[in-house]
Order: sequence, then C-alpha cells, then structure tokens
Amino acid sequence: MAAPLADQLDIVIPTIRNLDFLEEWRPFFQPYHLIIVQDGDPTKKIAVPEGFSYELYNRNDIERILGDKAWSISFKDSACRCFGFMVSKKKYIYTIDDDCFVAKDPSGKPINVLEQHIKNLLSPSTPFFFNTLYDPYREGTDFVRGYPFSLREGVTTATSHGLWMNIPDYDAPTQMVKPKERNTRFVDAVMTIPKGTLYPMCGMNLAFDRELIGAAMYFGLMGEGQPIGRYDDMWAGWCTKVICDHLGVGCKTGLPYVWHSKASNPFTNLRKEYKGIFWQEEIIPFFQNVTLSKTCTNAEECYIELADKVRKGLGHIDPYFSKLADGMIAWIEGWRMLNPAKTA
Amino acid sequence: MAAPLADQLDIVIPTIRNLDFLEEWRPFFQPYHLIIVQDGDPTKKIAVPEGFSYELYNRNDIERILGDKAWSISFKDSACRCFGFMVSKKKYIYTIDDDCFVAKDPSGKPINVLEQHIKNLLSPSTPFFFNTLYDPYREGTDFVRGYPFSLREGVTTATSHGLWMNIPDYDAPTQMVKPKERNTRFVDAVMTIPKGTLYPMCGMNLAFDRELIGAAMYFGLMGEGQPIGRYDDMWAGWCTKVICDHLGVGCKTGLPYVWHSKASNPFTNLRKEYKGIFWQEEIIPFFQNVTLSKTCTNAEECYIELADKVRKGLGHIDPYFSKLADGMIAWIEGWRMLNPAKTA
Repeated sequence: MAAPLADQLDIVIPTIRNLDFLEEWRPFFQPYHLIIVQDGDPTKKIAVPEGFSYELYNRNDIERILGDKAWSISFKDSACRCFGFMVSKKKYIYTIDDDCFVAKDPSGKPINVLEQHIKNLLSPSTPFFFNTLYDPYREGTDFVRGYPFSLREGVTTATSHGLWMNIPDYDAPTQMVKPKERNTRFVDAVMTIPKGTLYPMCGMNLAFDRELIGAAMYFGLMGEGQPIGRYDDMWAGWCTKVICDHLGVGCKTGLPYVWHSKASNPFTNLRKEYKGIFWQEEIIPFFQNVTLSKTCTNAEECYIELADKVRKGLGHIDPYFSKLADGMIAWIEGWRMLNPAKTA
Repeated sequence: MAAPLADQLDIVIPTIRNLDFLEEWRPFFQPYHLIIVQDGDPTKKIAVPEGFSYELYNRNDIERILGDKAWSISFKDSACRCFGFMVSKKKYIYTIDDDCFVAKDPSGKPINVLEQHIKNLLSPSTPFFFNTLYDPYREGTDFVRGYPFSLREGVTTATSHGLWMNIPDYDAPTQMVKPKERNTRFVDAVMTIPKGTLYPMCGMNLAFDRELIGAAMYFGLMGEGQPIGRYDDMWAGWCTKVICDHLGVGCKTGLPYVWHSKASNPFTNLRKEYKGIFWQEEIIPFFQNVTLSKTCTNAEECYIELADKVRKGLGHIDPYFSKLADGMIAWIEGWRMLNPAKTA
C-alpha cells in the first residue's frame, strides 16, 4: 500500500467504539501516527489493536494540557476531535469517524483515502474560475478552452473534503423522510469550491493542511451543556471557507469516498440539530457577507478577527454565539500555547 | 426513445458537413424540429436525410430576414448558429456541433442527450450554496446536512452545459502540447455553477431556456472580417452567466456527454484564438466585476445595459469591442423584430 507523507500527516479520530474499525483500515493507516481523542467518560478504556503508533487523549488529559482553556473543547461530542488538530505536530491532518470504513471504486478496488486526499492537498486549487472538466491537474485532463492562462498555476490547497458511499450525510428531517436512501453513485471527480461560495463541510472524511488552516479548524461548542450538536463540522467549514477565500487558498471536494456504515438516530439528531436548523438561516448570510481585514495574513489572525465579528454579527440570535466567540478566542490561545510561532 | 418536450424544443445546428451526423442521431433527433444555419457559401447545398423536420438558413436568408442588422451575425463561422436561436419560436433550444456523435455511458448504453438536458432544464438550480452530493434533485440523492432549508426550492434553470468524451475542448496551445489526450472519464454528475463564478461555456453540446436567456445567447462577431474566432461560445457564456446571476436563475454543467469525434486543427485554431488568449485576461476580470441595474429584469434589458458596459469597459483593449457592443445592440434589435413582446 502506498503511504505517502507518512511522516507528515497525523490521523485524528474522535473515539473508537469498535475494534473492526482499525482492523479494516490497518493496511492503510498503520504507516501513520494516530491521535485518538476520547469524547466521553475518561474512565472507559479504548482498546487500540497492536501495531499502531498512537497517542490517546481523554477529558482529563485535555483539562491537564489546556487548563483554563479546556472548556473550549466540547465534551461528550465528536467535536472534541479538534483537540487532536491542536496537539499534532505534523503539517497535515486526516480526520475520520469510526463508523466509516473502506469503500470500493467501481472496479471493486479498495480506495486508499489517504493517497487521494494527499494528491488533493499537494496539487493546486482553482477557486477563481470553474473548469468544466473538473480537476485540471489530474492525469488525462487539463484546463479547457477559455480558461485564463494567468489562473492556470492555481493556488495552494488548504482542505480536501471527501465523500461517503452508502449512508449519505443527511440532516435529521431528511433522514426521517428518506430513511432508506443510500448513496450508490460514485462520482469520479475532485473540484475546487469556487471563491465566495460556501459549502457544508462534513468532518467524517476530511483532510487539511494544519499549518495553513489548522488554527481555524475549531469544531465549536457542541455536546454536553450546549444548546446544539451536529454543527461542529459545519461551523468549521463556514469559518475555514471564508478564511481560505480571504487568504487566497483553496478548498476541494469530491474523491475519495469512504463507506459510511451506520445512520445515526434521526430522533437524537433532530434534538441536537433543531436550533441549528433555524440558526443557520441567519448564520449563512452572515458568513456570505463577512469580510476580513487585509492586515490578517494567516489563519490565526483571521480567526481572531472572525471571533469578534461573530460576537457582533450573531450575538443577537442567542447568547450562545457570544460564548462561542469566547470559545474561538480560547481555542486560539490554546493553539498558540501548543503551536508557538516559529522564530526565524 | 423518449422524446420529451418534442413540441417545445428546437435543435440548432451550425452547418452539417457529413450525412453520418444526422443518421447517427436519427433515433434521438427525429422527433424534434431542426434549425440548420449554414455558416459558409450559400450556394453549397446541405443535404438533409429524409424523415427530419427542418428549416435551413443560409447567408442570403439571414440578409433577407435581418436586413441592416444582418452584419451582427457572423459569417463563415459556427457563431452563426445564434441566428437559429433568434428565429426559433420554441421555449427551449439545444445546439450541437456536427462533429459530435452519440456517446455511451459506462454500461455501454447510448446516451440520450436531450432527455438529460431537459431533465437539467426542468429541475431547479442551486447557485447560492454548494451541495457536496451534486444535483440534489436527482433520484437517490438530496441536500446534505447543513444545507439551508430556505434554499432548497432552488431557482429556475436557464442553461444546461453538456460535456464531451474523446476529444476534450482544449485551446490551441493545450492541443499542441497534448495532441493525444482524450477524455475517457465519465463523471456521473450535474451541478450548478455557483453565483458569482464564471465558467468556460462551450457551444458544442448546450441547451437553454430561450424565453428566459435566449436574448443574451449572442455568439458575437467571429469568423470572416473579425480579428478573433473560437470565442463565440465563451462570449455567450460570460454574458449569460453574469445575466443569470443578476436575474437569479441557474446555469448547470455536467451530464450529458456527447462523443466529440474530431480535433480541429491546432494551427488554424491558434491563428483564430491568439488575440482572445491575451484579451480574455482583461475580459474575465471585467465580467467578474460587472454589475447590472436593478431595473433590468429580463435578458433583453440586461443585454442592452451590458452592451453599454462592454463599450465603456473593454473599448480600450481594441476597437473590436466597440464594434462588438454595436453588434450586441443590433442583435437585440433583430431579436425584438423576430420575437415581439407578448401583449397581455
């Protein structure tokens, strides 16, 4: 199995509830280092099969490491995975849920998700103009007639959003209306989400350049003690997309697919989501219109300014957003503590 | 063969240089009416096989029908096809080049291009937010988690841009560098080009709602007597995209594929294209930034205002753009003559 960039990428997993998960991924994941962030009761023990290089953090570890910033990491929710982004020392992160397994391409070949994500991250993005034959850097394709030559070098890629066969990532209402719908369609494409366009970024199968955008990959305040859930990755997606657009770097979506095995309970999901379903109607226009200062030239600076804009622009919806803005600041403080600026 | 909307769609073809073309398409095209616009010498006779309903226009017909506006229709260039858009009385247009044949899907089944284009046109577009599972209206798929519910009705679709297997639509430099590259990848997706994003619209395999956007589907001044060629469809693509964004209607790209049989001569193409290759570097920023007045509420009104903006915004590049702006106005005058406003 190809294991590209094995020394430059950490795999972050929010809890592992079954041993099959790592056994199935073993041929692909074993060359990489794993960071497991346990989302619930710290006394429960997660068994990691032999042969994997890993570090495991539970709630006690998060409290010990982050101290008075630890509250910014969600408890009893997979949003805690972002703690793994913070403690990693690698350039790239891949994060996956423990109910996602190896998918097969139409020829029946198991898909090497890391190989494809790394291809996506190492090849440029094209956010300023749409290429109708999709990824122009892929073998066998190129920019089509009419694509400006000045834009053909593309820009650095910050995120690679992979998709899911079998159980699609639907919200609770759609799950309830279409309980039997399965994604069986393999779309053989990767594309850049154009500049100025938001997308629903799912955290199930996601890779990103930690050095470039990691500081903005905060999964918010979800789970225990919070009024919403299941918007952790959406929040990170809106924030990172706006910041990538500001920084002139790219976000891709498409290949690779994972096999998403299990639909979460739609009733539980509805309870977690329902405020988000209302709130997103105001949050999305906010993110569509927010602008960042030219003086913000990296993800950290952008994120601090964005926290301030969130407080002012979304605070009227619910006191939650003021707390979330505080969480965003605490997150950056934690990030800076664990990722001190490199001195020249 | 399914022949949806056979009474509401015309097929416009700019010249037919070989009889095989209509014979191969017969099962799909015969239920529809054809409008053939002969692009060169009017004394040459185009043979149309028996069994097709068609009307054929040559240069003499264009001169006779449009009189002092006829100069706005390109001569000796496939850009003349837009005359067919103008004389049609149908709601929808499909236009195709005579070197495009029936493609097959991965299962080996011949692709019914009209059936797919009509599906694309009759189902809504989603230009305001990206859906990661592509067309949310397709059977077996939907909007993913995090897609705002207020946007799920979508908006009316104005254009459906289809793709090409085999010979990709490359510019002359890319053709020269990669003479043997063929498109063999079938991407099973249709998507909306997001609002604010331009794309290179190719005229080889294109359908649109003539009532909604036809007045802006002018293919410019190309061919004999003009300094450029091969930018006819690009021009129409930039103009229609900006106008669709302004009107709040959608442009889709993706399925269906045709089989593009023949690469045009790259040396001839370079001669036609080379000014366009420079000019597009200024034209595209112009279209990315142009805005239309709120008082423009249909394609005709938008197009007249755009002509004025083209004259002022691009005239400095070359006197050609002032002439093109005149052509845009003459085109609208011709359009209005042949398509008088319906009285209530």
